Amino acid sequence: MTTSYSVAQRVAAEALGTGFLVATVVGSGIMAERLAGGNVAIALLGNTIPTGAILIVLVLALGPISGAHFNPAVSLVMGLTRALPGRDVGIYVPAQVVGGCLGTLAAHAMFDLPLFQLAAKLRTGPAQWFAEFVATFGLLVTILSVVRFRIEAVPVAVGLYITAAYWFTASTSFANPAVTIARALTDTFAGIAPNHILPFILAQLAGALAGMVVMRWLLTGRAAAPSAAALAK
Amino acid sequence: MTTSYSVAQRVAAEALGTGFLVATVVGSGIMAERLAGGNVAIALLGNTIPTGAILIVLVLALGPISGAHFNPAVSLVMGLTRALPGRDVGIYVPAQVVGGCLGTLAAHAMFDLPLFQLAAKLRTGPAQWFAEFVATFGLLVTILSVVRFRIEAVPVAVGLYITAAYWFTASTSFANPAVTIARALTDTFAGIAPNHILPFILAQLAGALAGMVVMRWLLTGRAAAPSAAALAK
Amino acid sequence: MTTSYSVAQRVAAEALGTGFLVATVVGSGIMAERLAGGNVAIALLGNTIPTGAILIVLVLALGPISGAHFNPAVSLVMGLTRALPGRDVGIYVPAQVVGGCLGTLAAHAMFDLPLFQLAAKLRTGPAQWFAEFVATFGLLVTILSVVRFRIEAVPVAVGLYITAAYWFTASTSFANPAVTIARALTDTFAGIAPNHILPFILAQLAGALAGMVVMRWLLTGRAAAPSAAALAK
Amino acid sequence: MTTSYSVAQRVAAEALGTGFLVATVVGSGIMAERLAGGNVAIALLGNTIPTGAILIVLVLALGPISGAHFNPAVSLVMGLTRALPGRDVGIYVPAQVVGGCLGTLAAHAMFDLPLFQLAAKLRTGPAQWFAEFVATFGLLVTILSVVRFRIEAVPVAVGLYITAAYWFTASTSFANPAVTIARALTDTFAGIAPNHILPFILAQLAGALAGMVVMRWLLTGRAAAPSAAALAK
Repeated sequence: MTTSYSVAQRVAAEALGTGFLVATVVGSGIMAERLAGGNVAIALLGNTIPTGAILIVLVLALGPISGAHFNPAVSLVMGLTRALPGRDVGIYVPAQVVGGCLGTLAAHAMFDLPLFQLAAKLRTGPAQWFAEFVATFGLLVTILSVVRFRIEAVPVAVGLYITAAYWFTASTSFANPAVTIARALTDTFAGIAPNHILPFILAQLAGALAGMVVMRWLLTGRAAAPSAAALAK
Repeated sequence: MTTSYSVAQRVAAEALGTGFLVATVVGSGIMAERLAGGNVAIALLGNTIPTGAILIVLVLALGPISGAHFNPAVSLVMGLTRALPGRDVGIYVPAQVVGGCLGTLAAHAMFDLPLFQLAAKLRTGPAQWFAEFVATFGLLVTILSVVRFRIEAVPVAVGLYITAAYWFTASTSFANPAVTIARALTDTFAGIAPNHILPFILAQLAGALAGMVVMRWLLTGRAAAPSAAALAK
Repeated sequence: MTTSYSVAQRVAAEALGTGFLVATVVGSGIMAERLAGGNVAIALLGNTIPTGAILIVLVLALGPISGAHFNPAVSLVMGLTRALPGRDVGIYVPAQVVGGCLGTLAAHAMFDLPLFQLAAKLRTGPAQWFAEFVATFGLLVTILSVVRFRIEAVPVAVGLYITAAYWFTASTSFANPAVTIARALTDTFAGIAPNHILPFILAQLAGALAGMVVMRWLLTGRAAAPSAAALAK
Repeated sequence: MTTSYSVAQRVAAEALGTGFLVATVVGSGIMAERLAGGNVAIALLGNTIPTGAILIVLVLALGPISGAHFNPAVSLVMGLTRALPGRDVGIYVPAQVVGGCLGTLAAHAMFDLPLFQLAAKLRTGPAQWFAEFVATFGLLVTILSVVRFRIEAVPVAVGLYITAAYWFTASTSFANPAVTIARALTDTFAGIAPNHILPFILAQLAGALAGMVVMRWLLTGRAAAPSAAALAK
């Protein structure tokens, strides 16, 4: 995963990507809730489809520069599996958090809302935490497996996984500590009360680590497929 | 279809994949029905889009390990056509059923519902059975043909086929005996009363066998295309 | 476009594909209208998404056998451009019409409706005819161009084109004489009164021919791209 | 980007593509608003899905002929980065504007509306202008990056980007001066009052230039990847 891009370029790609991701999550949430006339399922569709779509775009566009993690849980696992140098984890993660928070601000600016807000929406309880665990577990299963077998399909796999996870989890699948923090800064459809962030992030990290452990076993015992090797950068 | 993955790994992949598939079907059904305000078409959209999306993801991620059947009707046909060793059918099928049932439990846990339930939803009658026959017939037509001609497109073909089949069948296209059994264990949107399972499964198996017979004739008389051969693992 | 498939196999593929296409159009229309609670936009979404999805699947699955026209207007243009032997047009077209009508019957059977019906839905007037002209013109522009430049993308191109055309035409884009005839046999969401068929078909054929003429000019003057040639079967 | 297509063919492709794009934006907006029963979120879904779908189709079909810009902001940046000869910018842009306006007329004709209209819908204010800046910035980030790394994925990237941008911007992301002008000619769902066009276009051009500058830095320092080079036409 060494490329010829500088650290500055890779950090910028992570911040830019996480920023656009959060701007889409928050912005489409605002738009969807405004227009949906109280039907939350329609609002969630208007939140899901853009989020899945932008993820595919962002991983396509920025993946070759930084790996397109946009997610501290992913960067952490990539660091632990030596796919990302350990010291880079420490610079990717703050870039993702800062980029994500700027994404929230950008969404507020685009919708003419106060830039700085704190979410009041309650998202808590063991069921939601378990949902975050499952969602992030599945995300890492997806990424580690598709990176190995068909790296060119990673953008679609990630985008469609999140599209599904928005609906099969009671928490609408944050599955991303940077996005979770950024969503505490908006009192709109996508918000999460700041005092509810920590257990979400812990559940996400636990899920990511569990995914790593399971896939380490599940993927062992076969050399990388030739086609994947040929496509790997 | 011999790979270097152990039986344990392949069985785990089938259980994991069927589990995530059922967790998505059941979980998104719960979410969609809760939010849709009584509009069942919106609920079904919120059930369809995640199901199609996760199928594409799961076949991409786990296909290279186990073949990504997640479906006893598919494993049976693969066994009959010698694409899967006969003895493996007998271990794939229970793994799929167990994985699917665990998926139902996971969905209940994520939505804070009682873990163990039995469905009360009635799904019966010749029209629904014919629909299951047609749905599974079409699924096998799709799989056998796309595996032959363009194996790298199988994930998208399966995901989009089920996306369509949710709507063109009166039964919303279960098309999968393991998923049918797992859906008897949830008294939510996706449920099916346990005493209505058997004719569904029989119709599915009949449809799968009919698809196998038709495609055996339709695909005969041409060597595998070079591109498909090159891509086959 | 000569393959080693027999005429019987290719005719069966055209009938099977057109049948599944019409079963999806009619069946998802019935399902969507039943569930949509009177909101026709939601019903049309529930009709559009499955139709686009099944088209991608069917062209993927059956394209290598018969070319996956499923549409007399397409077969006619393929005959005129010598992509399909002239005598084959005369057997493809009836197979498409018969297959399509069987698809309508299958949809009725799956939804427990009287098998034989005649549509009462009025679809007429110069605006709708112009819409059918534009829709079929665009379909041929899409097919002739993508077949030339990137044949492996034809399934997605056709499926997404129809997804769009359902909404940008006042007629919801039949764009297919066989499907038009088959839809006269259902008095449901997708129906068209039998006495309104003829101008639809004439407009479709005119649009297809116009598309052929325009693309003959637009695509002239460049040899087939190497990548397309390498992928062509 | 020199091809063997004549200027006339390339100009025709730009006009045809922009025409179909606008006909889809305007036509699906009319259809969606008519059917949505006042639920604007459903109407926007019925506007978004066809627009994203047709963009993928049009870039697939016409990209090899003209580059498939369909957008003066894109042609301008391509001219500044020498991907398009400077003199061609001056002929692409009017072709896009004329094609787009004809697309509006075609949509009106298909829906039996007066051909010539002026929009009354107000779209103004700094928030909307900032949204147009962000939307066009992101569009150029996407195009410049994906053209560089994986040119065969450009159709999907552009279509999905606009799918997302419809929802994450308060303006529903025009992001295209030719489309903006053409949408002033329709007093329907997609319209924009003519006196509100100019700041939209200025914001779009500023966003496009900002995207160009950022990507010039972000993409520097690495030769084109072999796979991209092999796929480039």
